[in-house]
Amino acid sequence: MKRRKFLKGAGIGAGAAALGTSGLAAPAIAQQTFRWKMLTTWPRNLPAIGVGAQRIADAITKMSDGRLTIKLYSAGELVPAFETFDAVRDGVAECCHDAPYYWIAKHGAVPFFCSVPGGLTPQEHNAWMYYGGGQELWDEMYAEWGLRGFLAGTGGPNMGGWYAKEINSIEDMDGLKMRIPGLGAEVFNRLGVISVNLAGGEVLPSLQTGALDAAEWAGPYNDLAMGFHKVVKYYYGPGVHEPGPGIALTVSRKAYDELPSDLQEIVRVAAGEENMRMLAETIRGNAAALDALINKHGVIAQHFPDPVIDAMHAHSEDVIATAGAIDGLSQRIYESWTGFRKQMVGLAPFGELGYDIGRARNQA
Amino acid sequence: MKRRKFLKGAGIGAGAAALGTSGLAAPAIAQQTFRWKMLTTWPRNLPAIGVGAQRIADAITKMSDGRLTIKLYSAGELVPAFETFDAVRDGVAECCHDAPYYWIAKHGAVPFFCSVPGGLTPQEHNAWMYYGGGQELWDEMYAEWGLRGFLAGTGGPNMGGWYAKEINSIEDMDGLKMRIPGLGAEVFNRLGVISVNLAGGEVLPSLQTGALDAAEWAGPYNDLAMGFHKVVKYYYGPGVHEPGPGIALTVSRKAYDELPSDLQEIVRVAAGEENMRMLAETIRGNAAALDALINKHGVIAQHFPDPVIDAMHAHSEDVIATAGAIDGLSQRIYESWTGFRKQMVGLAPFGELGYDIGRARNQA
Repeated sequence: MKRRKFLKGAGIGAGAAALGTSGLAAPAIAQQTFRWKMLTTWPRNLPAIGVGAQRIADAITKMSDGRLTIKLYSAGELVPAFETFDAVRDGVAECCHDAPYYWIAKHGAVPFFCSVPGGLTPQEHNAWMYYGGGQELWDEMYAEWGLRGFLAGTGGPNMGGWYAKEINSIEDMDGLKMRIPGLGAEVFNRLGVISVNLAGGEVLPSLQTGALDAAEWAGPYNDLAMGFHKVVKYYYGPGVHEPGPGIALTVSRKAYDELPSDLQEIVRVAAGEENMRMLAETIRGNAAALDALINKHGVIAQHFPDPVIDAMHAHSEDVIATAGAIDGLSQRIYESWTGFRKQMVGLAPFGELGYDIGRARNQA
Repeated sequence: MKRRKFLKGAGIGAGAAALGTSGLAAPAIAQQTFRWKMLTTWPRNLPAIGVGAQRIADAITKMSDGRLTIKLYSAGELVPAFETFDAVRDGVAECCHDAPYYWIAKHGAVPFFCSVPGGLTPQEHNAWMYYGGGQELWDEMYAEWGLRGFLAGTGGPNMGGWYAKEINSIEDMDGLKMRIPGLGAEVFNRLGVISVNLAGGEVLPSLQTGALDAAEWAGPYNDLAMGFHKVVKYYYGPGVHEPGPGIALTVSRKAYDELPSDLQEIVRVAAGEENMRMLAETIRGNAAALDALINKHGVIAQHFPDPVIDAMHAHSEDVIATAGAIDGLSQRIYESWTGFRKQMVGLAPFGELGYDIGRARNQA
């Protein structure tokens, strides 16, 4: 690992001790300065998620008064997006800001720490991760790779995608060539969709040429920036496949363990604050963007028909059961998570779901 | 103001300069140590909200490595709960952890920064406060008192209260003597309820003697601890009156401005992290407590009939319009807030509300 660590002013300790003999308090301890690299899996300054990574870096640098500086390298600037996880394992950087489900090839149950089809809303996911045993299971999985994950961002439920034609039935999904990655693709495939995974920049051209019939990306805030509305007009949502992707600050355990406890706490709290803030920015941005898509750009925003939603939920159960049956660890994750979701589903009518239904009926 | 501020080791600066001449880097700047008092409006260690205040204090102390230590005084330990706001204004303490709507006597529009009937969910409230102009309006109001508010906690939608008898119609509310404070009381009064405000410890005895027919407190997590289920069995919710109370860290501007910028950032980020964490703890706690209330304690948990909910929403509009028409500032707050809520109501079917409805139909 080529971590650049400076022990500035190594002689200060002796100086302070000398001053101490004159009867003055001596708080000035020689302080190590740490310089970390943060990789991300996002374009620089992508709304919410890209600027959120920068907010974490800035907050850590500022809170530590420069004792821990974080220099951010967006996707492709130092390593490609999908090599960031291994780059942190290999010591190329001390941390990365990513969506854990990208690392499904490392372990098939990793999406539970991010978002899975039919899963938890952002605040429910936080409840499981911080107070329901999720973090401990995540720590156990990542320890094997010398890493530690901190929740460090979240978006609301993803939309269900952009479609060239209207979706009136499950049959209308059959044979669609659609850009959708991950466990979401597993769900859509079971509906007859032919899923493909394309990097962001390839999606719009593929929709334009007709190589794709449909594409899922994120929510209105990001989707507006991608420009899909210029070529397809049907926008369906919310989806079932990704109800609140938890974003991670993935940190090298070795680098983290070398920090003094105040800097460790600064890293932990900065990640947690962004976990709140990114959702706030996303919700604000989604509302404005959805309004613009509908009222300025002529997009037809609709909900999937109930039978399509119900089929998605049914297939989701199958997909996550498979992800939860890989090995002993995935079984324990699945058991913890499904037990927790059952409680959340029970609480929802007495919580936000119940409140929102009444509000929707009365305010418009 | 009797703030105890210590400039430890005032001679260190000179010592470091002397070391500088020997060619070594000199990072050791004489560092001021600050000792703050945090008052709260909660009992010590009350689930989520009381322990959340302590979490903020601990995180600040730890992140600053003791350069800013926060000693917490719960309600009544230094000043009574409802005198904490004035105590911070008067310099008795540097900050307090409170629910802003407690200070409605200071300005009738202050509940918009906390929660109002028919209002925003926690994440929507965050979106307005951080990205929709809410914080700026809050800063403007509090500047007059030499204070600054940081969101520093939130709960989910409050339940609608505990009732001795079943509520099957609006008429069943008529004449009920009920403990409910604030703008919620205004809504319930319009339904024929005779609202009273009682401190926490008086509620259970009043329900026991029949002096009260009903009482609203918070959600299952806190309500279970209060023990209301021992005397009344009907538990209705969610309510309309308080869909996500934003909790504040209210800070003396003078004390805050005296901090170096790294400690200011530590205060800001610690508050924001707890704003996320408290909701996670509350949701987890609510689910477990609701389950215990129903399945262990024989509580009958139900939803208000739709006509009751709808009447509550109608009265809520009247109540918040009144709060938004006090003066020029309240008019600007009301305009910003109602415009934002309209966007949130429009987004909800494409966000969590839409997702939750489909999930509720498919999972149980």
